[in-house]
Amino acid sequence: MKTGILYGISVGPGDPELITLKGLRLLQSVPVVAFPAGVRGNRGMAEQIVAQWLNSNQVQLALTFPYVFDDAVLSSAWQVAAEQVWKYLEIGQDVAFACEGDVSFYSTFTYLAQTLQLLHPEVKVQVIPGVCSPMAAAAALGLPLTMRGQRLAVLPAIYTVGELEAVLDWADVVVLLKVSSVYEQVWQVLQRRNLLNRSYVVERATLPNQAIYTNLCDRPNLQLPYFSLLLIQAG
Amino acid sequence: MKTGILYGISVGPGDPELITLKGLRLLQSVPVVAFPAGVRGNRGMAEQIVAQWLNSNQVQLALTFPYVFDDAVLSSAWQVAAEQVWKYLEIGQDVAFACEGDVSFYSTFTYLAQTLQLLHPEVKVQVIPGVCSPMAAAAALGLPLTMRGQRLAVLPAIYTVGELEAVLDWADVVVLLKVSSVYEQVWQVLQRRNLLNRSYVVERATLPNQAIYTNLCDRPNLQLPYFSLLLIQAG
Repeated sequence: MKTGILYGISVGPGDPELITLKGLRLLQSVPVVAFPAGVRGNRGMAEQIVAQWLNSNQVQLALTFPYVFDDAVLSSAWQVAAEQVWKYLEIGQDVAFACEGDVSFYSTFTYLAQTLQLLHPEVKVQVIPGVCSPMAAAAALGLPLTMRGQRLAVLPAIYTVGELEAVLDWADVVVLLKVSSVYEQVWQVLQRRNLLNRSYVVERATLPNQAIYTNLCDRPNLQLPYFSLLLIQAG
Repeated sequence: MKTGILYGISVGPGDPELITLKGLRLLQSVPVVAFPAGVRGNRGMAEQIVAQWLNSNQVQLALTFPYVFDDAVLSSAWQVAAEQVWKYLEIGQDVAFACEGDVSFYSTFTYLAQTLQLLHPEVKVQVIPGVCSPMAAAAALGLPLTMRGQRLAVLPAIYTVGELEAVLDWADVVVLLKVSSVYEQVWQVLQRRNLLNRSYVVERATLPNQAIYTNLCDRPNLQLPYFSLLLIQAG
């Protein structure tokens, strides 16, 4: 029997209308739609984004990816998820994995696909690109992210001040993803470098509760949600 | 009279199905669709992408943006284009500017919008994010662009070898946009650093004539088209 295809569908930053036509077509064409399970009984972000596009005949498969750094725990979770998906693929059913933002950009889909390809090398994977959060944030701000010869740096989050300093020396535009846990340290660096008035925070870009902070001078300790991004025009 | 809105519509990397639902809805809702004019009688990339989505009642406005570095020439072209767009906005008609890739990412739209806002400060601009070329290239390659704590650097193109060397010292993943004019120099750097087997070229991502080069060791002087991108997994 022909095995099914695993589609990695980028569903965009939050607004359900920011999925691509191709992503939506494939999402609606498969019998099984998978997504990361939410935490504490809440629906996950990708699940919320695609909810309105699914029909009642589609199997919905919530896969658990724990928010931990322990490699053994993570690896075990990816294996369980991969086998859950494989159950459908091996009987010839296509599975669409819905992933917030873009599937290739710091995404859970990568680990799922890599684990599945390791366990079942015959698996076919196809990826549909989408809108990533830096583009959504720039659009929300009404600013260009990059122009002309500008050099862009993206950091998933900052752990050392030294690392941020090095990036600010080199790049014209710096994006810090998921900045909430390190915001106070970052603010200190930006103040020292006189960059607070050229820095912007976007919370939950494109969602109804989106929030924007365009002047950070008086905000040394913003309390930010997980999906927050800081954009610095350093150059 | 209420003036019209200028929409910056990101139409994605090439495949017309990679526009977002929101981008398409707005594109089809306006009386006037603008885009960069093609060169030498050919249709421009954005024009080709949106052609199938337009209807015959919509005005199509090709705006000329010369491919030069001369600031005076560019500035004058942006002013002419801005006034062409303003003619419609000032009589209350909305204009959608179609832009390949993402509107905030090294885009012609930025100069048009900034010039228009300078000439007519009352103008309203709204930007719809889209799929940018690095995401499209990663999807085409079937590779993640970035994972976990990886640091990403994007350069519009390389002019000095020293600059590329500095970026390779710092970033885990490096994307070189529009690499065609500097490919041979870049290849030398990658060879010296033993990175050729972790580097990938994608030409015209997502278009029917897309081409991928996954092994650059024997390709010191690839002849590449303008829309070519090089992805380096350096980390």
